[in-house]
Amino acid sequence: MYDQKWKMVPGGITAPKGFLAAGMAAEVRKRGRRDLALLYSEAPAAAAALFTQNQVQAAPVLVTREHLMQTEGQARAVVVNSGIANACTGERGIADARRMAEVAGEALKVPPQQVIVASTGVIGEYLPMEKIEAGIRKAALALSVDGGGAAAEAILTTDTTTKECAIRLPLGDKEVTVGGIAKGSGMIHPNMATMLAFITTDAVVEVPALQQALRWATDRSFNVITVDGDTSTNDMVVLLANGRAGNSPLTAGDPEFTLFRDALLAVCVELSKMIASDGEGASKLLEVRVKGAPGEAEARKIARAVAGSNLVKAAIFGEDANWGRVLSAAGACGVPFDPNLVDVFLGDLQVAARGMGLAFDEEKARSILSQREVTITLDLHSGGGRGTAWGCDLSFDYVRINAHYRT
Amino acid sequence: MYDQKWKMVPGGITAPKGFLAAGMAAEVRKRGRRDLALLYSEAPAAAAALFTQNQVQAAPVLVTREHLMQTEGQARAVVVNSGIANACTGERGIADARRMAEVAGEALKVPPQQVIVASTGVIGEYLPMEKIEAGIRKAALALSVDGGGAAAEAILTTDTTTKECAIRLPLGDKEVTVGGIAKGSGMIHPNMATMLAFITTDAVVEVPALQQALRWATDRSFNVITVDGDTSTNDMVVLLANGRAGNSPLTAGDPEFTLFRDALLAVCVELSKMIASDGEGASKLLEVRVKGAPGEAEARKIARAVAGSNLVKAAIFGEDANWGRVLSAAGACGVPFDPNLVDVFLGDLQVAARGMGLAFDEEKARSILSQREVTITLDLHSGGGRGTAWGCDLSFDYVRINAHYRT
Repeated sequence: MYDQKWKMVPGGITAPKGFLAAGMAAEVRKRGRRDLALLYSEAPAAAAALFTQNQVQAAPVLVTREHLMQTEGQARAVVVNSGIANACTGERGIADARRMAEVAGEALKVPPQQVIVASTGVIGEYLPMEKIEAGIRKAALALSVDGGGAAAEAILTTDTTTKECAIRLPLGDKEVTVGGIAKGSGMIHPNMATMLAFITTDAVVEVPALQQALRWATDRSFNVITVDGDTSTNDMVVLLANGRAGNSPLTAGDPEFTLFRDALLAVCVELSKMIASDGEGASKLLEVRVKGAPGEAEARKIARAVAGSNLVKAAIFGEDANWGRVLSAAGACGVPFDPNLVDVFLGDLQVAARGMGLAFDEEKARSILSQREVTITLDLHSGGGRGTAWGCDLSFDYVRINAHYRT
Repeated sequence: MYDQKWKMVPGGITAPKGFLAAGMAAEVRKRGRRDLALLYSEAPAAAAALFTQNQVQAAPVLVTREHLMQTEGQARAVVVNSGIANACTGERGIADARRMAEVAGEALKVPPQQVIVASTGVIGEYLPMEKIEAGIRKAALALSVDGGGAAAEAILTTDTTTKECAIRLPLGDKEVTVGGIAKGSGMIHPNMATMLAFITTDAVVEVPALQQALRWATDRSFNVITVDGDTSTNDMVVLLANGRAGNSPLTAGDPEFTLFRDALLAVCVELSKMIASDGEGASKLLEVRVKGAPGEAEARKIARAVAGSNLVKAAIFGEDANWGRVLSAAGACGVPFDPNLVDVFLGDLQVAARGMGLAFDEEKARSILSQREVTITLDLHSGGGRGTAWGCDLSFDYVRINAHYRT
């Protein structure tokens, strides 16, 4: 999906011009690890955001939504803590989230409404506000163009690796960069946004076009990953565009908008695959490709259902070529199709044709399933719709991690 | 939910008058265990059935559906094999399922269309028809009023216990019995029916009323259990009423029909709890009760979502009172409610009030969670709807069993 003229560049969210970041150890819940991130745009930035569709929405989600309504999509900073989700914390939680924005606003000399707030971690505990406030002030002093990596680290919970990437591309006679960081791990079955992802760009983009691009890219990236089928209370993806690239403003429908949107999608897909690959307890990245579906949305729905099936995930963990579970999971997700037309492939090995098993080479199947990345392809032969979803295997470690997460 | 005049009786599907059963070792896939069940009604029986909503439907599901249409809901026998599901087997699979009915019909001297066929086991393999045919003939000779237990055994796959129950109740001046057997274990997230359940009654019931009662009871029992969120290709629940009790015919709307329906529900709930309790790798039965919901269907939907959350299930396995996951799972299932009104209880210990955590006794919580049966109650304070669902914990053994099921 990458254009030849694009290049991957280091730096994550600070790769685009005019963004500074920092990651601090505020000791929210544990000592000695970064747990507070701050992102700052030197210029006013257009902001687009998508939030969890869970009925239970954490205080930072409610406060950020309010801020973006008040500013009509303008933002200058993002403040994030990990360790405690500030969810199910009532009025006090709302006040705490507002206070995070206030303190960041004071430190950065921007209005608090232009600060986006996010939290991730345990549900139902209050934030230690003294530590958080001190952390924010320290972070404001530490902001730097090299701080993207520290910020990427500070938003993690049970993640085992940081998740960041950036792409630089020519746009008209300018050069534009899109960069992002994310955290994932568990409670990952995003609906409208993933657990947390922050994306920056120096492109000049109008707010409506920015929101449209983010929704389009999210539907094809964060919204098609799944680790455990559980949708979080804190899901949020935020995209800031500060215009420092100086390109002519992008509006929906421009050919250059399409180019930008594709680059944004590439960043979102990279982050999504990193999240799926680092799913709690995961030992493998699972990519499910569906083609020949009635439509694109149907293809993605089937792909995500297969990637989310506990039985498929356990079979991938066990390196067992159990294609029947793949077909069964596809058939149960509510999309109508004719099972007698379906072909199934593991990697490039066809294991079922027209809904029935083939006498395939078990050795070859096992070797394909033993890789770190496994691709399952379903061809429904029922239309032109294509879609991909990402997930991971279901391992003993998923159970171990989640049996005692809180205590 | 039990009426004082009811009594639990032994015998399962052969507890009602006029039903005979047998369970044989046909060696479908493994030696030395029962894997073929036959049920026979001495009198013509009205039949009601519900089938999987999976797009991928096994051959026996298609053939049984066809038979019941041809006979307009009359049946004399049920033949079931375990070990191989006869799913994703194309034309040959259909022919094999038809042949099972033919052989049973010949042996029992009833038309093949009056034979219901079911299979459960591995997807994508063909049935060893010689062994199956010999097994059916042997079973026909072994039919007995004491054969319910052997039949209950023969339909199991990775189940660790048989699942059968029967209730006897006065109805008018007669006595009516409802009995059933089921198999569950994995791929359990039924939609319209569970993996396999067969219920018999000697009540006289009209076919439309019988179908209505079965749908009503299934929505409140089999359709609210979940083991792993995977809906099988072979789900089927069948109810046969042979009229041997001699009561006046039951039609929908009669007070006696309501009594019968309640007894049917009690049998279905017992079997459902046995299935959930014996879910693959399960160490605990999880009962989730929702009250104060906008409606009954909404209450059941939330209850099932909580019972089906991998994160809730892993926390129950780990005996961790992680009520935040309970609220998050409820909020993500698509039913609108105000999270700020919700109370959460573990057993009789309240752990959250109005959407926020309480300072509860962790010792007491741990002791409640260490029981073999754990009840979680959510009160939404948003209406009069009540509903219950059943599930089990997510353990290391679930992963172990499913990593290498096929091989």
